[in-house]
This record gives sequence, C-alpha cells and structure tokens, in this order.
Amino acid sequence: MPQKPDLPLPEAERRRVGYAIVGIGELSAGELIPAARTSEHAYVAALVTSEPEKGRAFARAYDLTDDDVYTYDRFEDLKDREDVEAVYIVLPNSLHREYVERAARMGKHVLCEKPLSVNAAEAQAMVDACREAGVLLMTAYRCQYTPHHWAARDAVQGGKLGRVKLLDSIHGQVEDDPEAWRLKRDLAGGGPLPDVGIYCLNTIRFVLGQEPEWVFATLHQPGGDERFREVEESVSFMLGFPGGVVANCLTSYGTQKTATLRVLGEGGTVLMDPAFTYQGLSLTISDGQGDFQPKLPDEDQFGLEMDHFARCIRGGKTPWTPGEEGVQDHRIMDAIYESARSGQVVRLERVEGKDAFRGEQPQVPGRE
Amino acid sequence: MPQKPDLPLPEAERRRVGYAIVGIGELSAGELIPAARTSEHAYVAALVTSEPEKGRAFARAYDLTDDDVYTYDRFEDLKDREDVEAVYIVLPNSLHREYVERAARMGKHVLCEKPLSVNAAEAQAMVDACREAGVLLMTAYRCQYTPHHWAARDAVQGGKLGRVKLLDSIHGQVEDDPEAWRLKRDLAGGGPLPDVGIYCLNTIRFVLGQEPEWVFATLHQPGGDERFREVEESVSFMLGFPGGVVANCLTSYGTQKTATLRVLGEGGTVLMDPAFTYQGLSLTISDGQGDFQPKLPDEDQFGLEMDHFARCIRGGKTPWTPGEEGVQDHRIMDAIYESARSGQVVRLERVEGKDAFRGEQPQVPGRE
Amino acid sequence: MPQKPDLPLPEAERRRVGYAIVGIGELSAGELIPAARTSEHAYVAALVTSEPEKGRAFARAYDLTDDDVYTYDRFEDLKDREDVEAVYIVLPNSLHREYVERAARMGKHVLCEKPLSVNAAEAQAMVDACREAGVLLMTAYRCQYTPHHWAARDAVQGGKLGRVKLLDSIHGQVEDDPEAWRLKRDLAGGGPLPDVGIYCLNTIRFVLGQEPEWVFATLHQPGGDERFREVEESVSFMLGFPGGVVANCLTSYGTQKTATLRVLGEGGTVLMDPAFTYQGLSLTISDGQGDFQPKLPDEDQFGLEMDHFARCIRGGKTPWTPGEEGVQDHRIMDAIYESARSGQVVRLERVEGKDAFRGEQPQVPGRE
Amino acid sequence: MPQKPDLPLPEAERRRVGYAIVGIGELSAGELIPAARTSEHAYVAALVTSEPEKGRAFARAYDLTDDDVYTYDRFEDLKDREDVEAVYIVLPNSLHREYVERAARMGKHVLCEKPLSVNAAEAQAMVDACREAGVLLMTAYRCQYTPHHWAARDAVQGGKLGRVKLLDSIHGQVEDDPEAWRLKRDLAGGGPLPDVGIYCLNTIRFVLGQEPEWVFATLHQPGGDERFREVEESVSFMLGFPGGVVANCLTSYGTQKTATLRVLGEGGTVLMDPAFTYQGLSLTISDGQGDFQPKLPDEDQFGLEMDHFARCIRGGKTPWTPGEEGVQDHRIMDAIYESARSGQVVRLERVEGKDAFRGEQPQVPGRE
Repeated sequence: MPQKPDLPLPEAERRRVGYAIVGIGELSAGELIPAARTSEHAYVAALVTSEPEKGRAFARAYDLTDDDVYTYDRFEDLKDREDVEAVYIVLPNSLHREYVERAARMGKHVLCEKPLSVNAAEAQAMVDACREAGVLLMTAYRCQYTPHHWAARDAVQGGKLGRVKLLDSIHGQVEDDPEAWRLKRDLAGGGPLPDVGIYCLNTIRFVLGQEPEWVFATLHQPGGDERFREVEESVSFMLGFPGGVVANCLTSYGTQKTATLRVLGEGGTVLMDPAFTYQGLSLTISDGQGDFQPKLPDEDQFGLEMDHFARCIRGGKTPWTPGEEGVQDHRIMDAIYESARSGQVVRLERVEGKDAFRGEQPQVPGRE
Repeated sequence: MPQKPDLPLPEAERRRVGYAIVGIGELSAGELIPAARTSEHAYVAALVTSEPEKGRAFARAYDLTDDDVYTYDRFEDLKDREDVEAVYIVLPNSLHREYVERAARMGKHVLCEKPLSVNAAEAQAMVDACREAGVLLMTAYRCQYTPHHWAARDAVQGGKLGRVKLLDSIHGQVEDDPEAWRLKRDLAGGGPLPDVGIYCLNTIRFVLGQEPEWVFATLHQPGGDERFREVEESVSFMLGFPGGVVANCLTSYGTQKTATLRVLGEGGTVLMDPAFTYQGLSLTISDGQGDFQPKLPDEDQFGLEMDHFARCIRGGKTPWTPGEEGVQDHRIMDAIYESARSGQVVRLERVEGKDAFRGEQPQVPGRE
Repeated sequence: MPQKPDLPLPEAERRRVGYAIVGIGELSAGELIPAARTSEHAYVAALVTSEPEKGRAFARAYDLTDDDVYTYDRFEDLKDREDVEAVYIVLPNSLHREYVERAARMGKHVLCEKPLSVNAAEAQAMVDACREAGVLLMTAYRCQYTPHHWAARDAVQGGKLGRVKLLDSIHGQVEDDPEAWRLKRDLAGGGPLPDVGIYCLNTIRFVLGQEPEWVFATLHQPGGDERFREVEESVSFMLGFPGGVVANCLTSYGTQKTATLRVLGEGGTVLMDPAFTYQGLSLTISDGQGDFQPKLPDEDQFGLEMDHFARCIRGGKTPWTPGEEGVQDHRIMDAIYESARSGQVVRLERVEGKDAFRGEQPQVPGRE
Repeated sequence: MPQKPDLPLPEAERRRVGYAIVGIGELSAGELIPAARTSEHAYVAALVTSEPEKGRAFARAYDLTDDDVYTYDRFEDLKDREDVEAVYIVLPNSLHREYVERAARMGKHVLCEKPLSVNAAEAQAMVDACREAGVLLMTAYRCQYTPHHWAARDAVQGGKLGRVKLLDSIHGQVEDDPEAWRLKRDLAGGGPLPDVGIYCLNTIRFVLGQEPEWVFATLHQPGGDERFREVEESVSFMLGFPGGVVANCLTSYGTQKTATLRVLGEGGTVLMDPAFTYQGLSLTISDGQGDFQPKLPDEDQFGLEMDHFARCIRGGKTPWTPGEEGVQDHRIMDAIYESARSGQVVRLERVEGKDAFRGEQPQVPGRE
C-alpha cells in the first residue's frame, strides 16, 4: 500500500492525515475530494463506495490505486490501513450512526457530514460511541471555519455592532427530484430543516456563541406535491436567546436559492448575502461610519475543515465542532419539529457559558 | 381668504384640493409640506399648530398668510374655509381619533397618518364617524403608492416568482430620545410595532393582497433602559397566510436603521433593501434569467398619497387605503401584542377576497 | 423692500445673504431656488427673467412679492436693492460675461454657473472685471463642495491609496432636443465638453489638487444628425499630470447617463459611481483591507455652494472655486479642442503649487 | 503509453484530445492543469518542464506516470506520443515562437498563451510556421470563450444598447517581484501592456467585432524603481474605431487590482466589473428599462478554451482565436508603443469585415 513512496515528500506532507471518503455522491465527487488537494494537512487515501467501477475511476483520477477502493461490505478492511487515520462520512443522514460506530470500533477518527444524525438521541449515541472508542468525532460544519464567518463573528463579539438585538436568516433552494434521498423521511430524518435550515441555526449559534432558550416554529407540507409526501417543504422558526435576543429563520425546498444572515445591533449590522454558498460569500459590516466589505481569502471550505480535523488528530485536541455541537443542533431541531406539531413554544434546557459545545479554535486564514 | 387670486391659474390648479395640515412636527415640516409642492392635485391651504409663531413662519415660507394659521382651539374655524377640503392629521397616535372625528363633523375629508389609531376599536370608531359624516377617510400608507412597491407587487401577483412561499421583512431604527412621544404608551399605543413594524405588516399585506390567518409574536422590553419603561424595544412576529405562506418580521427601536422586504417564490425572489425609506428605495427582481433592477421614477411619496386622496375627493371614490385598511392593521397588531403576552398563537378572523379592505387603485407613475 | 419684517428672525438669518437669481430655467426652478431654502446663510431675494408672469408665479411660491421680479432690461434696478448682495448667473454660457460684468459694475458679488464662459479669454475678462469692481466671483462647481467629493479627495491626498498612478472618468448623457441652446455653438461655446465633460476635468483637478501639463483629445461630430450640426457629440481626452499620472476621460451627449470617477493608486482605489449626479452619489474607497462606503450626509449640493459663497461674502474671503478656477478649466478645454483639431498633443503652461487657483476651504458637512 | 486502458471509457472520453503542457509555472499549476479536469474534450497527457522532480510530483497528482514528464531537451520525444495531439505553450513570451515552431514541426497542434509573441513580426512567423506544417494554432484568449463576455458581446451586437459610441477599459495590478520574468524586456517583450493591458484591447475588439483604425498612447516608466528599469509601469491608450467610436484604456503594474470594461451606447450600457478575473465575473446590462445581471454559468475559463481547441482539432476547423487574432493584437500593441515613443497618433491598416481574424464560433455554455 505504498503512499507516494518514491518521491521525497516534505516533512509536512509525510505527516498529512489520510482520509477514507465514505460515499461518493455529488458532494464527495464535486467538492470534498477536489478540496482534499488544497489541504495542507489532509489527503484522500481511500474511497468507500457501492459502485466499485466508479470508485476505481475516481481513484485513478486522484492518484490512488484500485486497491484503495472499498465496497461497504469490506469497510472493516480499512482497519489495517495504517495510512487511513480518519474517515469522512458522506452518506444519507440515517446511515451516519452505523458508519460512525463501525469506524470508531476500528479506531478511526471520524469527520461526519451535517446533520450529525436524524435526531438528538441517535446523535448522542454516536458521540458516546466515539468517546468509548477513544476516537475524535467532528461534525462537518464548514461555515464555522471560513474567514468570512469568523469575521462576522468577530465583528459581533468584538462589539462593533454594540449590543446585538435581533437576527434574521434564510436558507432556501429548490429540490425538484422527487426521488432524492433528501425527501425520504427514513433516510433524511426531515426535509429542508436538517439539510439547509441547519445552516441558519448553526451559524447563528456560532456567531453569538450562545444557545437558544426556546423555539417556536411552523411548517408547511403541501398536499398534492409528490416531493413532499414524507417531509415538509418549508419551516419558519424563531429562536429565543438569553437577554431577549431573537432570531427569525426561514428554510425551504420550494424557493429560489437564497442564503442570508443578518445580525442587528444598536450600533451596527452584519449582513452576509450569500451566507452559506460554497463560493462567493459576501460580508458587509455596517456601523455609524459606513459599510465595510473586508477583503478575505476565498478558501476552499471543505479543505479548511479537513485541515482542522487533521490538526486536531495530530495534536490530540477536541475539534471546534465536535459531535456535541452536532447533538445540540439536533436537540434544537427536535424542538422545532415539536413546536410545529404542537403549535406551542418549546423550551430548551438552559446552557451556560460561551461556545459550550465547541473545542479547539481553528486556525482561520487571514485572521490573527 | 383669497388663494392666489391675481394669477390666472391653469384649470388643473384651480381644482387642486386644499389641505389643512394638523400638527407641524418633524414629519410635516421636513416631508409633508415640502411634498405638497410636488403635488399635482393638492396644496397646503392652512396649518394647525400649538405654536402659532412657528406656524406663521411656516406659512410665510410656503406662500400662506398669517390668517392661514390656526391653533387647536380654533380648529373648528376651518369649517368655513371652503378652500380647505381635507385635513391631514399628523399628530401623536392617541390624538388621531379626536381630530378625525372633529374634522368629520366639519364635513372635511381626512387623511390620517399611520397607524390610524392606538387599537382596532378606536380605529373602527373613526371609520364609523367618517362614514356617518359622509366624508372620506384615508390611512396614509405611503408604501402603497410608490412605483417601487407596485413593481414589487406586480412581480409577485403577475407570477414572475412562481408560487410565493415565504416572506421576510425587517424595519428597525434607533429611537434615542427618552422624551419622545413615541415612547409613551398613552400617546403612541405601543413601541416600534405601530410606528415602524407596521411597514413590514402593511407592505406584506399589500404585496400579497391577502390577509393573515394567525400570528405568533414575542417582544422584548429591557429593564433598566429608561426609553423602554412603557413600550417594547423590539418585536419579532410571524404571520400565517392562506396556503401555508408564512412571513417572518422583525421590528425594533434598538437597532441601526434597517428596512428590508424579501418575497421568496419557487421561481424567483423580490428584494427591497432599503424597502421603507423616504428616498433611495431599491428593488431587485430575480428569476431564473438573472437579477433585474427596474428603472423607476423616484417620486415624493407624500406627494403621491396627497395626490391620490385629492383625486378620490374629486371623483367621489374610496381611497386605495381607506380607514378600513388601517383598522385591519390594528386588528393584526392587537393580535401580535396578545400573542406576545400569552405566548400562544392567535388566530385572526378569516378574510376572503383580494385586497379586501382597499378601494380605488391609485395612478402610479411609470406604471401602465 | 422689507424682507420678512414682522417676524423676529434669529441673528443668523438676519445676516443671510440675499441672492438675485438671474435666469429661471430648469436648473433654477428645479434645483437652485428650492436649494436656497436649505441654505443656512443664503436666501433668494429677487428673480430676473424674460418671462415676468412666470417670475411672479415663482415669486409667490417662494415668499417673494411681485416687486422682487425683474426683467433683463431692468437688471440695473437691482443696484438699489441693498438686500441683494449677490447675483447667481444661470444663463446660457455666452451670456455669462455680460451679466457678470453688469453685476460687478453694480457692486454685486457674483456666483456664476459652470462653465464660467465660452473660452479662456472671455473667462479671464470676467475675472478681471470683478477684480476691478472689487466684488467676489465664484464659479459654481458643486462637486467641489460635497461630503462625498471631499472624502474622495481626502482619501487620495491622505495617502490611503498610496501613490496615485492613473485616473479614469466618464460623464455622458443623451441630449435629444435639437433646439436646446446647449447645442448652439454661439450660446454654449461647445458641446458636451463644457457642459458635462467639465465635471470629469474639474473633479480630477480637485481630487489631485494639481494641474495637467498636456492634453490629447479626439472628438466625434456625426454627419446627418441635426443635433450635432454645430457642436460635437463626444470627446475622448487624456490629461497628463506631473509625475507621469494620466487621466482618461470620456464625455458625450449621445450615451445613456453615465457618471463615474476612478482613482487608481498602488495601494488602493477610489470609485465614485455615480460621481456627478445631484443626488445619490456613491463612494467606495478600497485598499488592502477591503472596500469601504463611508456614511456621508446627502446634502443639497446647490445649497452648499450658495452657503459657501455667502460665508465668503460675509468674511471677505476668496471662494474655494473663484473665477480663476473657472478660467483654468477653460484653458484646458481650449487645449482639448485644439488637440482634437490638430491631432497633436497640446502642452499647457506649467502650474506649480497645490490648489493653485483655489481660495478659502469650504466647511463640508461631516468633515472635521 | 497506455492511457487509462483498463477502464471502459465513454466514447467521448476516448476521443478526448491529449495535451502536453509546456511549462509548469503558476498559471499551469494553479489553473490550466486543474482546468483540464473540467474539460469534456481535452485532458493532460504529458508535462514538459525544466524541473523533472516537480514534474513527476505533478504527474502523480494528476494521474500521469513518470514517463509522461519531459525536459525541454527531450521535447521532440513527444513526436511519437500519438496520444499527445496538442501542446499548450505556457512559457515566457519570448520563448513562444521557438516552441510553437518545434511543436509544429512535430505535427502537433498548438494552443499558445497570450500574448502570442513579443511583436507582430515574430507572431506572424509563428502563424506562417503552423500553416506550413499543417497544424492548427490558437491564441489562448480566455475572455473570448466565457458566457459573460459573450453575453456582453451579444448585448452590444444585438442592439440592446442602440448605437455604440464609446468604450472604457482598465486592467491593472501590482507586480512587486523585481525578478519576475514579466519585468524583463527580453523575455516579456514589454510590461503591463502585453500582459494585462492586452485584455482591454482584445476584449474591446471582440465585443465590437471590429478593428481600430488608429491609436494614441502614453506610457510611464518611473525612474528609481528597480522593477521598471526595462519595461513601463503604466500605459494609457486610446483606440479609434470606424464611425467615430473611441475606446479609452488604462493598464498598469502599479495599481491595486482593477479590471473593468464599459460600453456606452445611446440607449444603454454594458458594465463588466470585474471584467477579466478568472472567477467572479460580473456583468450588468442597462437600458431604459433598468439594470440586468444575467444569470450565467461560472465555467472554468481555461477548460472552455482547451475544449474549444480540442473540438477544432477533431473537426478540422480554424479556432475562434487563431494565431492571426494574436498577430493583430501585436500589430496594435506595436503601434501603441510607437505612439508612446513618438507622441503622435499612429494609423493602423484598415481592416474590413466583422471578426476579420477569427474562425469557428465556440460553443458557449448557456448560450443558444
């Protein structure tokens, strides 16, 4: 299993962390695998797929051999691959738990796509399994690793806006394939909320560094649209934070692509529009002096999160967005669905402290 | 009381409607009175004020005489002023009812600033009084008369966005004078909701042409801030419309000026930002083809509404935003406050039909 | 001729400078006269027009009497109007000289619209006449008085862009009335260059505080278009400044409204777009940190220049843009036309020193 | 030399054109080679470099073998590589001719980076050599292949702007490495003009489909700056087109990154800002109706040009931007330098017809 044996690699490269990518769908093929090439500390060492031919084509395209391609029934063969130190789970949500636990049992660290699971209980079980196995678990929240989102957070937390009063976020897009696994409740655990609405929720929590105390929500599941037989089309939700701060959020599979975040303070505002796209993030910080668009590096977001996790593995640190961060979003999403069902406000357990579920701060390009 | 007697006026001018402006505060002085000069069908014929010296200075500045200035105790003297066909009420909200009713009793038509009153019951009484007196009553909703807002409405109702799914609107600004009448419950009837939040509510209703079926709201009234001893600082509210359409709104007296409106459809979006300012309104209509900012005349908004009401008076028509339109906003705001108090969803009476509370469509510059 | 006699005016008002507006065309009626109302230090005391009825209508509309309206043959009657301390010349360019000289002979200070005249020789004669008469002469360059243009200049001169290397400016619009005086060479002295292109030229000189050393230009006068029988449709010109700094400019009567200014430095750029409109000026200052749109007051530009001249009259100071400033633009425009005729570079007399033709710095709102 | 032999490739892939990339500098490594992966019709089959270790590292990273790496002295060994049908020359400008000619002699088609050469004579020799050898030669003008630039051209040529009157373009950036080959006259043939200014020139010619009749230019080469001992820092140039249309252009190695293109017509304008970047191109088409930003695919620009050339090779067609297109830019740049030297307008040979130097129109994504 020689890994680039004949080329004297720089020390840094030799110590790069090898990932097995588990699941070669659109996200892996179009974003993650290419992103790994931009990573300083990570590389793709193996691929796991149900379509071995497709896997082998990818392998060749990315400097791997046929032997680096595994089918799911051979997943445990990765155990002996010393060069595979981490797995990156990019499967339908309902399969996250099984593969995280199988990886943990092999002693592999796990980076898992968001949402971490299909509900808080399942997600917590994954956290527990990784803790017991002594491996690190990170939830792949790319918007907690970019220069743009950190600049927004720094503006908010550094007082540039004065006291923050209100927030507003929208994440919608059209899902038009009725056969998409994202529209099957069993596989996805929900509709747009856990898929795209989670960005509103997670990024608001990240920017504030605080946890909501209550939620109110309503959802719409139109009759007669085969896409939404199992899951909702849209969710509107309100999050109540300490000190009377409230965030309004909208998410949908039925609207033209929209991705915004606005933070309103007494002395200024932050606007991200678009706020959650892979590329072209735009940030404006406004205060009494004017409007400012900071010049920020436009890094590959997936590369940044793979790098961070690789550094945590090397340094034995808890990642910035560990499994617990993913569990907390599930707790809140569970409450959102409950509120939508009951028509009532749902209170959440009070969480003290800042960044209560987060670990080691990432190194963010262009940020001191 | 000769009005420009010695200059042969064009026919159109001779038939212009003379208004008495009741209350010379910042809005009258800075916007309404100057706006009247841009009006084709209206002019300022008299001023009513508690400060006669200030009134006389204004009178001279605007081609009136000292005899055109009235104090409130001489309000009824306007009855004999045949040239004063309408009064424009620009007083603190709690005084609207009294002066609308006194004007109605004199047989004068009434244009009344928004909010129409301090609650739905008071507002309905005003409508009833005007009906009985046989005078027209119009609520001064300037954002239902501009080329920009009509272009937004036309895009939505003409199907450019496909089916509308969700809306989002914010209107906040800093109110920092603790002595402002807007912060006194008795005078204002509420805080930012009836003052600036009403724009979100009213414009959403206008753009959709429909009425909400339920509301949910929460508000924040910070302790220790003398400005907010009597009224709330912020309100977050959700409006449920027929067919599962939901609008999220934020309004505040504690945030940097922000005024936005977004309509999300399956095939496109409308964005106004700023959406409610006196000048510089910006509209982008997006669909699968791209983003479009139509070139629209930047008319004086107060001039447009004074013109519309003047035409309605001449033509004996119900204005586009009659008193009933103002009553309906009060019903919804009453429900918003009730929801914030109770923590429960509040259902509204079902209203059928499009533009159920509106009258004669205005002529909008640049619109066919 | 009592001016507002019966109202006790604040001291500041009593000392306001009364202007006679000479010429009631579109600019006077739509901008200058309304602007005077926003002025702290100036007011309109008289009107001079060839259409006395129109003048009287205006007079009444603006708190003047019929006695404040003069025809051109009665121009010298203004001499006895002590309250008229200044005249504002808003006539076709070729008439500027005559009326400036007649005003000067009456001892009235003169604010004259741009371009000051029809060529440098005529313009210089006007400067000489005013000097001999002991009255102040100011060229009405509104873009040297706004917060936006001063912020651009301050960024450039304060080093925010590093060394300035290149500039680029465009000012074009469609002139479609073949009968407009602006298209008659005798009246206008040229086509778009002295009318709108002068903004590019004058604002570049203002922002740099330096004078060009050479020009190169080409112009286009299309055959078969009756509008351009006498004057050019477009001019492209290049200005060479000390140190190798070059500015490219375009001006036209044949293009959709475009008004831009860009300053390129080694460490940053300034962009104004639109750069020369009456309202809605937009300024972006970019450097290595990002893009910044300063929040600046959107003042009435004509009010600002009338105020400045009033202060200069009161204080006995040379205005920031005196007649000499207008002469210099004519020298450069003369050279531009000469270059276009000859196809050769035309050298200009070298001018040392900064702001060589300017006087007392204006007070600019929002600038320390 | 089996190329992906064991994987059944789709027909389209089997017929993809294999390129040898000649020169692995920043552009090849960062853009061209990754771009080849996005190409439908092209792939990288070999690398030519003076640094074989670097080449082998790249080879492995991109699915090639050590045998696919060549040094310059082994360049002719490519002759026998049947799978290498084209070479892509990415060398300092002064080496283009030698390698184009060596490639042509081997019967390989040649895609050559812009500028085609160091002057028109050299460039013409390259065209002649390729014609004699019976191979295709294409100049790599990426901005003639993007959806954005074609949409700009279509708007201009389709009459959306009415008659075009004037154009304006800027392309500047900071070159701060005094050792860069781009600053050596022998290697580069000039300074910013042939490197970045060529985009202004070439894109204006493309958008108009016409050729300039004359040029005027001035350049600045500051003393005391070691970077500009051999080449200019900045060039300002004016291009005269048929019918009085004039374009003003600025280019520099001494200004913050700026890349704009503006086309001014009597009924509308086109603005690209940025106009020449690898990503994030922005296009606004304005007319009397408003401003429109069409939604266009953001394709990899290098992939698009490699694809086009591959299709031409397969179809035996002259590429859209053949060698002749590159020669013409050199003729104009030669004239620009001559004008800057002489201070005189330089006339160019008259060229009749539209797109006089162009071949087969490319297929542009999203364009019918």
